[in-house]
Amino acid sequence: MFKLYGMSGSGNCWKPAVLMKQLGIPFEWIEIDIQRGQSRTPAFLAKNANGKVPLLELDDGRTLAESNAMLCYLAEGSPLFPADRWQRAKILEWLFFEQYSHEPYIATVRFWVHFMHKQDEWRDKIAEAMKKGYAALGVMERRLQASAFLAGPDYSIADIALFAYTDVAYEGGYDLGDYPAVRAWLARVAALPRFERMT
Amino acid sequence: MFKLYGMSGSGNCWKPAVLMKQLGIPFEWIEIDIQRGQSRTPAFLAKNANGKVPLLELDDGRTLAESNAMLCYLAEGSPLFPADRWQRAKILEWLFFEQYSHEPYIATVRFWVHFMHKQDEWRDKIAEAMKKGYAALGVMERRLQASAFLAGPDYSIADIALFAYTDVAYEGGYDLGDYPAVRAWLARVAALPRFERMT
Repeated sequence: MFKLYGMSGSGNCWKPAVLMKQLGIPFEWIEIDIQRGQSRTPAFLAKNANGKVPLLELDDGRTLAESNAMLCYLAEGSPLFPADRWQRAKILEWLFFEQYSHEPYIATVRFWVHFMHKQDEWRDKIAEAMKKGYAALGVMERRLQASAFLAGPDYSIADIALFAYTDVAYEGGYDLGDYPAVRAWLARVAALPRFERMT
Repeated sequence: MFKLYGMSGSGNCWKPAVLMKQLGIPFEWIEIDIQRGQSRTPAFLAKNANGKVPLLELDDGRTLAESNAMLCYLAEGSPLFPADRWQRAKILEWLFFEQYSHEPYIATVRFWVHFMHKQDEWRDKIAEAMKKGYAALGVMERRLQASAFLAGPDYSIADIALFAYTDVAYEGGYDLGDYPAVRAWLARVAALPRFERMT
């Protein structure tokens, strides 16, 4: 059985968990509190030199880091990561978009505001990051005005990756009022079978 | 024939170009000067709503953004992105590591220093970013002490992705003196057939 080392409340950690629940893959969740340094212990660094969660561990001890690499690995052979070469390319495009253009602004602002309570102290830094976060939401909005899901007409792991922090963006102060297609898509994804929002 | 929209001097744009040269895939390079706003024109935004290069265009007009998604797409069927599920997962792990933990600190500092000449004005910001850049180099060093290439004993697109900005990290002021395995790996990759360093 897979072991998933993760921290509750982390969208990156939620991604492989919700995917495994949807696909009916059993796994054991091992809580790692990064704020108490539990991802920086020698034992954990031996599993992931980058000292980050989530981390997926196989029965034989092999480990895989990077939430979006896990999505690809776990969804292999399922309709959520179809074999078609172009479809895969478009899914990967959204996965990389998420980690480069979305997560660093939307997840990070949520972390600063919701967990670190820096909304006043870091006002300028937050405003700067939010410009880029809204730009990422704009890219999603444009896409979702034309398509039911991000990578095409069908739900895929791209939707899981982008749902993670978009759904909780409001906790960082983001207002999705001007992003109706994004809001409709969040509702569409959340209504899928065996889909569980981050708690 | 593929069209590759890119900016000379950009490691992200260099990645798909060097891969296509190595695989013998013909393509046309179309220079886009992002500092003159050429990735933000209505015509370009119609091709990539995220307004970034590189952008790969197929004969039928379909487009693919995100350099690392291009590497996966273009290397499909080649030994640089083997079909084995675990091998792919480990390659993807490095590709996401590159975009999240490496590029934002190593490429960005290079951009600030080498292209924007902000080394004095942004001294503190640069020092802050370099801590994380050196941490990423440390993760690579540990891996490359044990393995000839990043994802295993064989060269893969993971090596192309990480070579891009590691090879020019010195232009941002990074010193690879304490990273002998990284330096040996750079030399090993650069010596591969049909490999062309960024000019």
